[in-house]
Amino acid sequence: MAEYIESLARLAEQFARLEGVGKKSAMRMAFSVLELEKEEVADFAHALTDAKEKIHLCPVCQNLTDKELCPICADPGRDRSTVCVVTDPRALLAMEKVREFSGVYHVLHGVISPMNGITPEKLKIKELLARVGEGEIKEVIVATDPTVEGEATALYLSKLLKPLGVKVTRLAYGVPVGADLEYADEVTLFRALEGRREV
Amino acid sequence: MAEYIESLARLAEQFARLEGVGKKSAMRMAFSVLELEKEEVADFAHALTDAKEKIHLCPVCQNLTDKELCPICADPGRDRSTVCVVTDPRALLAMEKVREFSGVYHVLHGVISPMNGITPEKLKIKELLARVGEGEIKEVIVATDPTVEGEATALYLSKLLKPLGVKVTRLAYGVPVGADLEYADEVTLFRALEGRREV
Repeated sequence: MAEYIESLARLAEQFARLEGVGKKSAMRMAFSVLELEKEEVADFAHALTDAKEKIHLCPVCQNLTDKELCPICADPGRDRSTVCVVTDPRALLAMEKVREFSGVYHVLHGVISPMNGITPEKLKIKELLARVGEGEIKEVIVATDPTVEGEATALYLSKLLKPLGVKVTRLAYGVPVGADLEYADEVTLFRALEGRREV
Repeated sequence: MAEYIESLARLAEQFARLEGVGKKSAMRMAFSVLELEKEEVADFAHALTDAKEKIHLCPVCQNLTDKELCPICADPGRDRSTVCVVTDPRALLAMEKVREFSGVYHVLHGVISPMNGITPEKLKIKELLARVGEGEIKEVIVATDPTVEGEATALYLSKLLKPLGVKVTRLAYGVPVGADLEYADEVTLFRALEGRREV
């Protein structure tokens, strides 16, 4: 039946393009749109184009913003000598929730992944090098994910950054707070043991 | 951060209106939209308004369609003497997948649920009574969900329909094919036992 209604199938296809949305969910969402009022659907369509039009990358840190600079780069209270490098804007959000980091960020928009055709040139790496080249930055904290690709990207960055005379650090590995040791994987436990600290 | 970008938050709110989409998924989808090209976002917006504009209810069975009649009502090969009453267009789709039912449908667009303000008047019940009143229909299969509200709706319909001289039936209860008896709930097992058939 759904395949008979072309415009419904096309709408479902659009939802299915979004990250983490499968075919079944996409179809459910398309049906759900039809239950909205006509004006509500028009608002939805407007919100889509509006967000895409207004939001661009902050020219300093490459974070998303609808202003000239992102709110963090525009904040005079942030410490510009420490830069935390994150994979994407969502990782930045997660770091900001900690409320402990007072430095600034740099968003790579991905990790190096030759298998998926993501070479270093496709990431915001030259923008990072340009920032470090300006001389104000003293430490770069590489907070890419603790995955194979995240690690490789961190290694790649540290090789480029160290010759520029900045301190390059990485987030600590270890057992997550509140987790059950029984369920921690061996690599994590090994890293936690390796990084043990005196109490 | 996300809350700083108004247009992004507004877009996420729109996604969150859709059935089965939580706040976190909605935000992830909004971020995902920003990764699309500008033309792709315009296509998405167009697909939304296009679907809403073109799709309406079939005047006979109340199913969704972008034609004058839905493809089932328009099909001369379907048996118009048997009507299967379903809750929504998705339930109709599920029934059609069986490829065994050659009758026609009637879509209620909900179940009676006084707690949620859904009274019989809000469903396509008078349209069903009008169809039955025309005299061509011999059997009405009430295929509402086997939930409390689905049952109540089925009972309500059968009370209205029986005096009109039509046979009113309900889908059989029982253990789902391929399921593990161990995990079947007691009510289902009781109904399966009650409805047992000689082999």
